[in-house]
Amino acid sequence: MTNVAIFGATGYGGVELLRILLEHPDVNVAYLGGHTTVGENVAEFYPHLSGAIDMEVREIDVSAAAEVADLMFFALPHAVGAELVAEALEGGHRVIDFSADCRLKSAEIYELHYEPHPRPDLLEQAVYGLPELHREEIIQTQLTAVPGCYPTSAILALAPAVSEGIIEPDVIVDSKSGVSGAGRKLSLVTHYTECNESVAAYKIASHRHTPEMVQELSGCGADVSVTFTPHLIPMNRGILSTCYAKLTAGMTVDELVDLYRGFYDGEPFVRVLDAGSVPATKHVSGSNFCHIGLAIDETNGRLIAVSAIDNLIKGLAGAAVQCMNLMLGCDETTALERHPIWP
Amino acid sequence: MTNVAIFGATGYGGVELLRILLEHPDVNVAYLGGHTTVGENVAEFYPHLSGAIDMEVREIDVSAAAEVADLMFFALPHAVGAELVAEALEGGHRVIDFSADCRLKSAEIYELHYEPHPRPDLLEQAVYGLPELHREEIIQTQLTAVPGCYPTSAILALAPAVSEGIIEPDVIVDSKSGVSGAGRKLSLVTHYTECNESVAAYKIASHRHTPEMVQELSGCGADVSVTFTPHLIPMNRGILSTCYAKLTAGMTVDELVDLYRGFYDGEPFVRVLDAGSVPATKHVSGSNFCHIGLAIDETNGRLIAVSAIDNLIKGLAGAAVQCMNLMLGCDETTALERHPIWP
Amino acid sequence: MTNVAIFGATGYGGVELLRILLEHPDVNVAYLGGHTTVGENVAEFYPHLSGAIDMEVREIDVSAAAEVADLMFFALPHAVGAELVAEALEGGHRVIDFSADCRLKSAEIYELHYEPHPRPDLLEQAVYGLPELHREEIIQTQLTAVPGCYPTSAILALAPAVSEGIIEPDVIVDSKSGVSGAGRKLSLVTHYTECNESVAAYKIASHRHTPEMVQELSGCGADVSVTFTPHLIPMNRGILSTCYAKLTAGMTVDELVDLYRGFYDGEPFVRVLDAGSVPATKHVSGSNFCHIGLAIDETNGRLIAVSAIDNLIKGLAGAAVQCMNLMLGCDETTALERHPIWP
Amino acid sequence: MTNVAIFGATGYGGVELLRILLEHPDVNVAYLGGHTTVGENVAEFYPHLSGAIDMEVREIDVSAAAEVADLMFFALPHAVGAELVAEALEGGHRVIDFSADCRLKSAEIYELHYEPHPRPDLLEQAVYGLPELHREEIIQTQLTAVPGCYPTSAILALAPAVSEGIIEPDVIVDSKSGVSGAGRKLSLVTHYTECNESVAAYKIASHRHTPEMVQELSGCGADVSVTFTPHLIPMNRGILSTCYAKLTAGMTVDELVDLYRGFYDGEPFVRVLDAGSVPATKHVSGSNFCHIGLAIDETNGRLIAVSAIDNLIKGLAGAAVQCMNLMLGCDETTALERHPIWP
Repeated sequence: MTNVAIFGATGYGGVELLRILLEHPDVNVAYLGGHTTVGENVAEFYPHLSGAIDMEVREIDVSAAAEVADLMFFALPHAVGAELVAEALEGGHRVIDFSADCRLKSAEIYELHYEPHPRPDLLEQAVYGLPELHREEIIQTQLTAVPGCYPTSAILALAPAVSEGIIEPDVIVDSKSGVSGAGRKLSLVTHYTECNESVAAYKIASHRHTPEMVQELSGCGADVSVTFTPHLIPMNRGILSTCYAKLTAGMTVDELVDLYRGFYDGEPFVRVLDAGSVPATKHVSGSNFCHIGLAIDETNGRLIAVSAIDNLIKGLAGAAVQCMNLMLGCDETTALERHPIWP
Repeated sequence: MTNVAIFGATGYGGVELLRILLEHPDVNVAYLGGHTTVGENVAEFYPHLSGAIDMEVREIDVSAAAEVADLMFFALPHAVGAELVAEALEGGHRVIDFSADCRLKSAEIYELHYEPHPRPDLLEQAVYGLPELHREEIIQTQLTAVPGCYPTSAILALAPAVSEGIIEPDVIVDSKSGVSGAGRKLSLVTHYTECNESVAAYKIASHRHTPEMVQELSGCGADVSVTFTPHLIPMNRGILSTCYAKLTAGMTVDELVDLYRGFYDGEPFVRVLDAGSVPATKHVSGSNFCHIGLAIDETNGRLIAVSAIDNLIKGLAGAAVQCMNLMLGCDETTALERHPIWP
Repeated sequence: MTNVAIFGATGYGGVELLRILLEHPDVNVAYLGGHTTVGENVAEFYPHLSGAIDMEVREIDVSAAAEVADLMFFALPHAVGAELVAEALEGGHRVIDFSADCRLKSAEIYELHYEPHPRPDLLEQAVYGLPELHREEIIQTQLTAVPGCYPTSAILALAPAVSEGIIEPDVIVDSKSGVSGAGRKLSLVTHYTECNESVAAYKIASHRHTPEMVQELSGCGADVSVTFTPHLIPMNRGILSTCYAKLTAGMTVDELVDLYRGFYDGEPFVRVLDAGSVPATKHVSGSNFCHIGLAIDETNGRLIAVSAIDNLIKGLAGAAVQCMNLMLGCDETTALERHPIWP
Repeated sequence: MTNVAIFGATGYGGVELLRILLEHPDVNVAYLGGHTTVGENVAEFYPHLSGAIDMEVREIDVSAAAEVADLMFFALPHAVGAELVAEALEGGHRVIDFSADCRLKSAEIYELHYEPHPRPDLLEQAVYGLPELHREEIIQTQLTAVPGCYPTSAILALAPAVSEGIIEPDVIVDSKSGVSGAGRKLSLVTHYTECNESVAAYKIASHRHTPEMVQELSGCGADVSVTFTPHLIPMNRGILSTCYAKLTAGMTVDELVDLYRGFYDGEPFVRVLDAGSVPATKHVSGSNFCHIGLAIDETNGRLIAVSAIDNLIKGLAGAAVQCMNLMLGCDETTALERHPIWP
């Protein structure tokens, strides 16, 4: 039994992590840390967990948490938690960080998209927590960075094609995300009546998740450039990413499916669909699965790869647990076996 | 390990049952029977279960199923399955029936609301599958009738008040249901663009679930009359029932909460909320829980009891599994421990 | 041509009023007053009106508005605008007030539900702006109070029955409202992911709109008591109110429909549906119509009257324009002829 | 006053056309023709129009309609109405056709995507009904083909760029459509519970609207190839098209906005947004407007043009009325002045 702490337990990522860990047989949630909710019982503001947990939120205090917990999850905004992550690492704790602070290899690129990095030394030891690309490193590391939700969907959709060199390294990622991706913080954009019955693009060609895609896809083969447009969709959960790239040579969809299935052979949570099938976010909703559908525009020699994930599970808390399982030596799928829920 | 068959496996009730049973450690799904989908693999038309099950749908054939299965679930339309239920019972199988065929004690009342009962003899041996009222009978029975989704929500909201005689036995049940309650059968009423962004009542004071409420609430105390209005709400899952009745004597909400908590003491899936808290369907979505909130209109001496359930789980497939667990001697909560999912 | 001012132009009520007035041939919007948006162009924060209007929001200043406008709309929170309303009246302006400040006849009842009334003298001269009950008074008045959205739906559903004495004066109003009724102010309750895919009751038997229902229904006949439960529904617009009352004598639905049609004879915006038809909020969405469906629970001698309105039009801005038309001597339906939009 | 007939009056396109025409001062709807609804009153199955129209649906019979109507709208499935269109033209009637039958210039390309063309002679006289590209031809023609909803959104987003030669003629169109685009015909894909809370792509690189985009964009400049992916979004109305193309030379977004505004100068229904603003389907919902937002991915030298329309208005019935106004010599905006509705 491993005792864990969750800092930032009351956002959507934190509470989804909490729900999953409550179903994990080898883990005990020993400490919940928050900002605005200190002293409150988590079941008060998350009535869906009433009866499942009876625990007060405490300060975000690494040394207090260190008394009861070994592994620590940080679900704090970027830059806010970097010093605390460092403190936890120095105390010998294993850390899984949800923020962007440990995802990029380059402090310069981080600064370009966020701000001067508060602890650039973290970038060297952190592992990008996508088991499909970095499983062995995750098993070994003390510090895992949970990937952004959009990058997870885009990288899984394109990594096999980049890796095998079948596409030109200039890709377009057009993503559609449910509103939970914007978190629980109030804003007019996520006010019910403003986003319901509407679709909009945002941060066109300027979203901070773009450099993660560039870094990880480039790590699979040639240097890749990415044009990325996220869209907000009136639904709670799910990301669908439709990815476009020029094929370097002619191939059939069946060959493409075979190539992807070879790449993901043995992966417990990636399913490459049969030629002709298209993924839908509902097919994976409530689960840690990623479905990938593949098509070819023969007229224009273009690959279209479409991936679907639950943004709060495979795109966030489930990915964190998958990495935790690897770091702890548990079966990788523990507490993640839930099938998607329908309808 | 108990082998089970599911007839009518491809409706929403059947597939939700299948999903839950796939997570049940003591049960093996051995036979799936359907009408229009015979010969197809269930994962083809329910892609969310791809990888979880690889099984062809077969004919609805009790004797074929009897070769591999002991307990049989019937998720067929009313009247359609009655003869088959009888056949299964005669073969010594335990049966859990989702239809209205075995819920009412009176063949006359059944005929009034449905049609002449094809097998009135079933009514005598069937137990109404609401564990909160009939646990001991369910443990003993060979035949359980899964309650209607609306009756489950209304009966749980009102049974304590009727049982303790604190309300006049003339109640109003105003229910709001998600669209999955109407099933997977196509109709203009459940066509996306027709029901989205709209609320409507239907079958006012004439819905077939009314006699179930009358029967079961009357079984708790005085003869109860029920005015019932269901409404269709633009969401996938959930039923909220707002129930009104005149109080026979003055009391406080705290006394009311205590009374309800006493009545449901030890129940694994019923939560009576603190005074001042109101239930929401999202608080129980994806789970087998029923939340009950209580209020009093002091000016008019009226009780308002509000219950929330997931119509496909506590209102259907979860209730069936809860009864199955009792019939099989498993822990009552097996495979039903999932916490609700948020958001 | 009448010049009008709108104070509180940027809430949902104000902007819907603005949209309707922009389509009114006899009215010119001459002044927009706001709090947090002073100096901004209204088309900036309401892009759907870009091209339709090019006007800066100014201070909420009655004397400045008086230079350019005759009639003044106040869409401000209760108590906030009362002194300004008085100032406008003293300046000889006609006023239409959206808040609760002028709706109730009794300052004591106002204080019970809100706070001590800042200007109780307003209550004497104000007319309750429901043309179906107070047309002649509205034509004559200098000050109209726009009814609450819930009261409009409940009063229209029950006024004929109360007026004709066919029901016992103890009624239940169970209302379902779209989220726009909660306005544009941010709150967790109206955060997309919190209210989407969920239904909940709120302010059970304690909502401030209850005394309006009591006052106006009691004005139709015997003193009426009201148990009122509002519910939040995941859709943008619409209120459906399901109203219950005991019938004092037996009658058929056809007789009921005739009685209601007699009561509303000649009303341009109320439609009493044929026996057997049920209203849906979508049937009136985007219009000033109110649809009323009627049913009888014969077993229990109970009337069920269901009304549907667009909460922002017949429930707010449309009602205001209907009253304005009467006050100005325009045709009552001017700028309100839009048919509902489908789907 | 022009008398018009509508064939196929009861689909979403037909009934939206009907609603708009009922608000048109110079047009009288004299004949409604349908298949399955013959003999029924249109207000029976479209209760939102009760009171607005009282007319029986008759047979789809050109000669019967010719007795009372001059101009005829055909809102029938492709291939079904071609002979009738020809009959109406031979009778001297002006025709506006909603189907794909008259949109393409080439019978070969039509056959490739649909079936052998039943009346290829129609293709020569038909004008593609996009006033922004073909206004003068529409004024002159006897036969207008209403563009597909997706092509309208894509062509308006890209025509200026193609026309000015600033992009390479190999474009990607990623479109997101509300469910009303799939019509009123029942299907599992548009069953509420199947498409709610889900996003999916469909007909990837094989949708029949692609050749329209190719034809019309190629008509603006160089031969253009199009990779097109439509997606189904859980909302009633709206299409957002995100279009990608390589820029041939460096330019700023401000230059881009100027170029687009020059191209659409004087257009009553196209708004090119300021640099930095992004369109949302809600900004145009319920109106005939098209909003276009522009961005540049400087890193990759790529244009991203995003357009938003209401698929049933600018994408269908509104476009038809805009063309009708031109054909009849009415003001082009008559009956199309409605502002979008918010929220």
